Amino acid sequence: MASREITDKYFSSYFKYKEGILHCESVPVTNIKSWLEKCGITTSSPVFVYSKTQIVENVEAYQNALQKLGRPTMLNYAMKANMNPTLMSIMKDQGCSVTLVSGLELKLAIQLGFKPENLLLNGNGKQNWEIELAVRNDCMLNIDSLFNLKQTINVARNLKTRARVLLRVNPDIDPKVHEYICTGSKETKFGINEEDLDKILADIKEEPLIHLIGLHCHIGSTITDINVFRESAIVIYNFYKRLKADGYKHLNVINLGGGLGINYKQHAAKTSRPDFSHVDTDHVTCIPSPAEVISVIDDVFGDDNVSLILEPGRSLIGNSGILVCTVLGVKHGHSQNYIVVDGAMTEVIRPALYDAYHHIDLAEPSNHRNKDVYNIVGPVCESGDFLGKDRYLSTPHEGCSLVVFDVGAYCSSMGSNYNMRVHPAEVLINGRNIDVIRRPDTLDDILTPYTPVNTL
Amino acid sequence: MASREITDKYFSSYFKYKEGILHCESVPVTNIKSWLEKCGITTSSPVFVYSKTQIVENVEAYQNALQKLGRPTMLNYAMKANMNPTLMSIMKDQGCSVTLVSGLELKLAIQLGFKPENLLLNGNGKQNWEIELAVRNDCMLNIDSLFNLKQTINVARNLKTRARVLLRVNPDIDPKVHEYICTGSKETKFGINEEDLDKILADIKEEPLIHLIGLHCHIGSTITDINVFRESAIVIYNFYKRLKADGYKHLNVINLGGGLGINYKQHAAKTSRPDFSHVDTDHVTCIPSPAEVISVIDDVFGDDNVSLILEPGRSLIGNSGILVCTVLGVKHGHSQNYIVVDGAMTEVIRPALYDAYHHIDLAEPSNHRNKDVYNIVGPVCESGDFLGKDRYLSTPHEGCSLVVFDVGAYCSSMGSNYNMRVHPAEVLINGRNIDVIRRPDTLDDILTPYTPVNTL
Repeated sequence: MASREITDKYFSSYFKYKEGILHCESVPVTNIKSWLEKCGITTSSPVFVYSKTQIVENVEAYQNALQKLGRPTMLNYAMKANMNPTLMSIMKDQGCSVTLVSGLELKLAIQLGFKPENLLLNGNGKQNWEIELAVRNDCMLNIDSLFNLKQTINVARNLKTRARVLLRVNPDIDPKVHEYICTGSKETKFGINEEDLDKILADIKEEPLIHLIGLHCHIGSTITDINVFRESAIVIYNFYKRLKADGYKHLNVINLGGGLGINYKQHAAKTSRPDFSHVDTDHVTCIPSPAEVISVIDDVFGDDNVSLILEPGRSLIGNSGILVCTVLGVKHGHSQNYIVVDGAMTEVIRPALYDAYHHIDLAEPSNHRNKDVYNIVGPVCESGDFLGKDRYLSTPHEGCSLVVFDVGAYCSSMGSNYNMRVHPAEVLINGRNIDVIRRPDTLDDILTPYTPVNTL
Repeated sequence: MASREITDKYFSSYFKYKEGILHCESVPVTNIKSWLEKCGITTSSPVFVYSKTQIVENVEAYQNALQKLGRPTMLNYAMKANMNPTLMSIMKDQGCSVTLVSGLELKLAIQLGFKPENLLLNGNGKQNWEIELAVRNDCMLNIDSLFNLKQTINVARNLKTRARVLLRVNPDIDPKVHEYICTGSKETKFGINEEDLDKILADIKEEPLIHLIGLHCHIGSTITDINVFRESAIVIYNFYKRLKADGYKHLNVINLGGGLGINYKQHAAKTSRPDFSHVDTDHVTCIPSPAEVISVIDDVFGDDNVSLILEPGRSLIGNSGILVCTVLGVKHGHSQNYIVVDGAMTEVIRPALYDAYHHIDLAEPSNHRNKDVYNIVGPVCESGDFLGKDRYLSTPHEGCSLVVFDVGAYCSSMGSNYNMRVHPAEVLINGRNIDVIRRPDTLDDILTPYTPVNTL
């Protein structure tokens, strides 16, 4: 029961219906479109709406648990989830650092005032200029492969500057070779292969400019089983102790990555038809809380004063954002019904790309009384353009507001201008306050890079 | 055998190896990176490279066949395939018009000097301002649904201006209801449902501002079976004759959409291991040529002087573009090998999104002698980021150029800034000439829309 309470606490939502109207904090989301238009923003729908309080609470769920531990810790927001600078500044104010996956992400994080030495550059395919930027700023770097180590050694020697590195290892490296790091799962494009591990460790020992400060693993994403975190922690901590014993004197960090899932079905139970297979009510309360995950990891490390880095993305920001769309019309067919809205795969590609579930509901009461089963689709000229399938919803009137939930992570950041659609406005709600934190693209934004390059 | 010759003619390629180096027309693609750098473009890899001669030949394959017909015809480039303004201008110079799917696409086409009355606005979810823009410019509009007709009637009445419309019908509408339009396949989000067809036809008859000038169907994309075109033409032409007899006096156009596939495996036969299942050599010569498709349709229409519109996208531009990447490194594992390049799903999302095949090969001889089976992946921090799987290739050296073929359609236009990656440079080759037709994004391009909106 304790677990259930923690989970419910963590998933308290700042998106709630009051008298039939969905509110983000104290703002009816149905007011945002006209508010934007009053501000001169005519491309006012769809719009990404974020709750500041939700983000702050998500971060606090991690920070409070980390601060109770008797060891150094660092909470690194994985900014690929959502790079909106205003949202990143909230992370900074809450004491987060950042994990980055590209040179431009690194430049932005430095611009925003994050401490360079706490930044961590990750990635399986880094370019030399990106590594150089990281080394010059004394950032940490995850080493992903033998060729990545070679690149890093070359950069460090050229700059005559130390590089602080972590090794990204796969907990699934064959135990027959490296018995201290075992689990069983498939290879991915990320992390060091068992074949290369001895060579990498030997090269690091010989190179005084490479400071091996830590080990990193990242097991996957949208993880909901706490045992996965425990087992990874055990495997990587055993490897850590072995390397300490082998004389890697700078070693003092374990970075367990991110990967904690969020409950994409948190809003589903109350609105969907119970006989629909996608409503997995078991799922609603079984995701572990950050406090539970952190406690499990801390138990594994015991009295060892090793530093802990976590790199959550989705679980810090995913449930803090919604996409508010406008219904353009409804089509009823004999085998399939459609609600056509002005939002599309260009804003939320996860359903098309991963067959991911995002909860969808009307944001206000419909003028119609009937309900039906609908596919919710956008205007993009492509059959893959859908936001949700087989949803049991009130038939909306034209102009009705419709909401796609839990789009804070991996939606805006994966957006495109396909069909020459503009990236929509993004607003941040804080109590009754509304701030525009991204204006919509303009035609000029899209066309400027195509202007003939006269300097050539 | 005749069919085979036509097909081979059509698929003549302007991307050919000379002394081991891939050339686009007369330019070794391995020279483009340093050429861009001399021009001051430091983000020089990856790069989209287009062949102007290939585009012109692709268009001519359609135009020559259309011009032989004794009827009015129009070749409408489906600009969602690739909206690069320079490439669109080539289409214009070759006598194409354009089919558009959004208001911004319409604005761009008008800016580029296409005749507004030949433009056609398509789409299942049009916004009122987009319909208004089309009606004001006397463009054609495809009507996709009952609600879309209502929108269009409202706009036409408000503007007191006629709207020239085509009905988008699904050839799969149940023959038991409308016997003159039959085939059997599933409903999609596009096109008018059988339930609504009678109502729509009645509404159009009553509204003098709505001029029903034509019928439209689009059966799908990447079609390789010529019978699909014949059957659609029969179904829609029978429907057309019926409506003519019913007194729709403006009716004089049939728009058969696009959908002709391209041979994504044209380059595969010579380089891939014959025992790999993805090398479907039958596939290499079986795609019908534009001339064959046009001849089949013309036969169906016979002596009737109905106008024909075709809306190809992929088959005009798909095989005219390649993505030239640089190899960052190679990882060998016991169950999987990886070539890591600097191109990614942010430039070519079709493999991740549709499991689509794009041929991949080195653009130059490798310094290594061995070959192996590789997954080709990019630097995006996501397991879905791959460009090709299980390809038998020479092991490339670091810095080697690697090419993804046939990325002219639905690659650049579907690109994103995920991981804060920049949209790459695009160059157009014409003989020995190289033109930059899109500069790479800058950090400023990406961040400008996030600048605080001071006017609020």
